[in-house]
Amino acid sequence: MGGAAGGLAAKVLGGDRRAAARLLSYLEDRDPRGTEAYREIYRKSGRAHLIGVTGPPGSGKSTLVDALVKEYRAMGHKVAVVAVDPTSPFTGGAILGDRVRMLDHTMDPGVVIRSMASRGSMGGIAPATYQAAVVYDAMGFDKVIIETVGTGQLETDIIRCAHTVAVVTMPGTGDEVQVAKAGLFEIGDIFVVNKADKDGADATRREIESMLALGSFPQGWRPPVLMAVAVEGRGAKELSELANAHREHLQKSGRGKEAELARARHVILQELAESVRERAEEALQGPLASLVSKVAARGTDASSAARELSRAL
Amino acid sequence: MGGAAGGLAAKVLGGDRRAAARLLSYLEDRDPRGTEAYREIYRKSGRAHLIGVTGPPGSGKSTLVDALVKEYRAMGHKVAVVAVDPTSPFTGGAILGDRVRMLDHTMDPGVVIRSMASRGSMGGIAPATYQAAVVYDAMGFDKVIIETVGTGQLETDIIRCAHTVAVVTMPGTGDEVQVAKAGLFEIGDIFVVNKADKDGADATRREIESMLALGSFPQGWRPPVLMAVAVEGRGAKELSELANAHREHLQKSGRGKEAELARARHVILQELAESVRERAEEALQGPLASLVSKVAARGTDASSAARELSRAL
Repeated sequence: MGGAAGGLAAKVLGGDRRAAARLLSYLEDRDPRGTEAYREIYRKSGRAHLIGVTGPPGSGKSTLVDALVKEYRAMGHKVAVVAVDPTSPFTGGAILGDRVRMLDHTMDPGVVIRSMASRGSMGGIAPATYQAAVVYDAMGFDKVIIETVGTGQLETDIIRCAHTVAVVTMPGTGDEVQVAKAGLFEIGDIFVVNKADKDGADATRREIESMLALGSFPQGWRPPVLMAVAVEGRGAKELSELANAHREHLQKSGRGKEAELARARHVILQELAESVRERAEEALQGPLASLVSKVAARGTDASSAARELSRAL
Repeated sequence: MGGAAGGLAAKVLGGDRRAAARLLSYLEDRDPRGTEAYREIYRKSGRAHLIGVTGPPGSGKSTLVDALVKEYRAMGHKVAVVAVDPTSPFTGGAILGDRVRMLDHTMDPGVVIRSMASRGSMGGIAPATYQAAVVYDAMGFDKVIIETVGTGQLETDIIRCAHTVAVVTMPGTGDEVQVAKAGLFEIGDIFVVNKADKDGADATRREIESMLALGSFPQGWRPPVLMAVAVEGRGAKELSELANAHREHLQKSGRGKEAELARARHVILQELAESVRERAEEALQGPLASLVSKVAARGTDASSAARELSRAL
């Protein structure tokens, strides 16, 4: 363990939030200083409940997360929120001002919020999001909420590191179909119909129930469907209770250990893919640029080129 | 070149559609018989115009693609459509019946349609979609349309193999925001406001224009915004003309060659990532399963485990 990394890890574990913010930036940038400190911190993690909240844009995820944070605070939990905000090079930052609503909590030392910038590149964001959750876990935040827009494979990938996943929809937008298309039925442990005071809320609930009726639940947990009106805080308490019940189920059924192994495998593969990609990108810019030209000119195909690249790395 | 693979490649290049369908299944399954035949076919490709059509669910992409196919057929082009339909293990197949609308074309030898099943696994679908486009290109289809739900990174990844990308939105659904969030502003060459007979179409157009106004277009192509009513076929002709204009721009500006190199690099990296993932998954199920347990037990962290795995592979 390097002295500097040891120092950074110790600071973070001691509760230093500035140090934690620096570490998370290192991790996002895949800076080696972060890797070293993280190694130490990871070993101290594993106590928090990681809760994923996902759903289509506009379903009111952030408002629900906000209400859930209040609920958990009232119960005395320390809460961390890790939110993946898509960004655009055109706007130069997060497009939605969702996080603004959370400013209430910013003076509360029992709450920490981190926005992950999903930059252009593919691989980095999923591992960095998980690492941020682990860092807060090791710092003693016992509820870590991971919030993503649930619309694609990348988001599904991110949310897979949570223990309990809540999928949020709203009535009258065909959200159920969108949820199904994004593969969220497979990963939801709890379904929330938000904005349940709107027309069509019952129909949406029924649609979700009928999709769920097609599933078998060999693990013994049948995802409940919760009606919520997050802007009024309605449903947040029930959500926290369902999340607790799910966690208890994981622990009692032994399913939690199994999930932990699946998560470990998933994260190792992510790390491996990312490091291979980094090395390969460098090689293709430099010594192996000729491979790119050769494929572009149809002199060889990509999988033959990948094999050559793989041998050279 | 193996005899069997040579035989399959020759059949496909000779226009045998059953052979092509078999090859595409091999490629989706990453069956070595596919890899070999593809190698030969790839070298014969590079003539078709690859057109990506993407946008949020419900924007009417499939209807627009349908209209575009009719337009291209009327002009005498041979058209292939490669559509990525998200599937769900719950429903056991594609959720949307979009493709049914295309049945008109199925008796037309100048049109071929392939639905790619996006299975649970992450990596495979993007390379297989590109490979399907290449196969049709080599078979002499001169317009190859790649259609995906444009909501996440995976879809962006798929669509990056197209020469010309049309991003489809519809009025009054906040689609512009969704488009921005999905990072589609960066990849769109043409924007289509579909269902332009609905209220709010002009507002949507203005929003897109104002987002585009924030961009600089050093390549000399400023994406046009087209109004369309795909169910009536309105806008399809204009879309085909804009796509042609974009292709001409690529050729004249030299930007096409640059894009070809970027595409080659991207595809090589995809292939490499996929093959590394395959080998790593096997190793983690087998000889290196202990690494997974060790990470789950916090005995080491994922990136250290990935390094060990990388050395062992």
